[in-house]
Amino acid sequence: MATGPDLEPGERLDELGVRNWQIIQREDEFRFSLDAVLLAHFATLRSRARVVDLGCGGGAVALFLLARGAASVSGLELNPRLAAMAKRTGELNGLSGQLQIVCGGVGEIRSYYPAGQADLVTANPPYRAVATGRVSPSAGLAMARHESCANLRDFVRAAAYLLRHRGRFAMIHLPERLADICGELREAGLEPKRLRLVQPFADRPPRMVLVEAVKGAAPGGLSVLPPLLVYQARNEYHPEILSYYR
Amino acid sequence: MATGPDLEPGERLDELGVRNWQIIQREDEFRFSLDAVLLAHFATLRSRARVVDLGCGGGAVALFLLARGAASVSGLELNPRLAAMAKRTGELNGLSGQLQIVCGGVGEIRSYYPAGQADLVTANPPYRAVATGRVSPSAGLAMARHESCANLRDFVRAAAYLLRHRGRFAMIHLPERLADICGELREAGLEPKRLRLVQPFADRPPRMVLVEAVKGAAPGGLSVLPPLLVYQARNEYHPEILSYYR
Repeated sequence: MATGPDLEPGERLDELGVRNWQIIQREDEFRFSLDAVLLAHFATLRSRARVVDLGCGGGAVALFLLARGAASVSGLELNPRLAAMAKRTGELNGLSGQLQIVCGGVGEIRSYYPAGQADLVTANPPYRAVATGRVSPSAGLAMARHESCANLRDFVRAAAYLLRHRGRFAMIHLPERLADICGELREAGLEPKRLRLVQPFADRPPRMVLVEAVKGAAPGGLSVLPPLLVYQARNEYHPEILSYYR
Repeated sequence: MATGPDLEPGERLDELGVRNWQIIQREDEFRFSLDAVLLAHFATLRSRARVVDLGCGGGAVALFLLARGAASVSGLELNPRLAAMAKRTGELNGLSGQLQIVCGGVGEIRSYYPAGQADLVTANPPYRAVATGRVSPSAGLAMARHESCANLRDFVRAAAYLLRHRGRFAMIHLPERLADICGELREAGLEPKRLRLVQPFADRPPRMVLVEAVKGAAPGGLSVLPPLLVYQARNEYHPEILSYYR
């Protein structure tokens, strides 16, 4: 943790873990987790890809995608404080030219972006349906975790709107929502083509699921990859996870 | 391999692997594989359950379910030769009272069974869509592997017809059909509630998927179990698999 000229009260500078980049975060807002790292590394990223990250929070997924070589990323974030932090994080790392931040909701995607222009859309959306799980007393954290402002369908529809034909939508979500996810994707014309479960260990149930769908692709032919194992021993990340930070 | 008075030319007696039961099989018809064992042990089996196995082949899944304690199982099989073999297999093992075999297709399920009476329906259906994969020159084998006579939707619809409210449908299928499976189940009013991928080893992609759906259940809440690992070393089954044969 360090402080810099661009920080506002309550903010702190955290290491992103790649390229010596830093990210502005605060205790009372959503902070990036391993999920952002997993999503950014799972997505099929082609050179010169135009990427949109839906619900970008403080910009972690966008930064990891830029570190992987994305030409430019636009992040859409509803929470104005997070959107402002993400914008300043981009400036701080000298990425203003590649990282655009838009403050707005996925439900109003048509107001912010043209249709059919994105090669890749990513999303680490709120996981919990309204009225399930513990609700955070922080309005910002509650919005990031629960589908109070936008639900799975809203995110999927926004992705379908943004993508060009054959463009890809990569998402990380809860395994318990898998049937919902497949259903919503197909209804929106996005065919699931890659799926990977994220397990703490080889013999444990998955905690997360990574899914990638292709706009306008024929049904079927879903490639289910080997599970992504997070740990190889207690408190010791699996080499695959560590390779993401190289 | 042994011979007995009930065998016809080309038939042989194979060990089922449980309870000293035997099963009549022949080279030129579908023979049971590990898939039958996995399906029968994955299904949620309550005491006194009335079970129907769709596309029962020579009766292996039905026998494994009886070995696990099912009160009775009815097997539906389109191929008359396999149906006759399954019937004689039941008699051979003294199970005629508990194993009923019906020769017919899932598309005509209403001709054979009343609606809403089954507690559990199982299916190890043909995996391959028509015009994919190698087609066997044997008519019987082709029918067992390809959806030439009945497809995924036909099996799912038949299960939905047979099941009582809250009854369960357990199926084994290819992971690449997972999105199709979730879609067909939901369309038929069967909500996926348990899912388990079957992998040869912890770091390999899944070869099969086990899915269980509940008729009339609310959407969501899919429980994705730890992967079922088939081997713990080369040519050495994982202890969980071996436990099925106790």
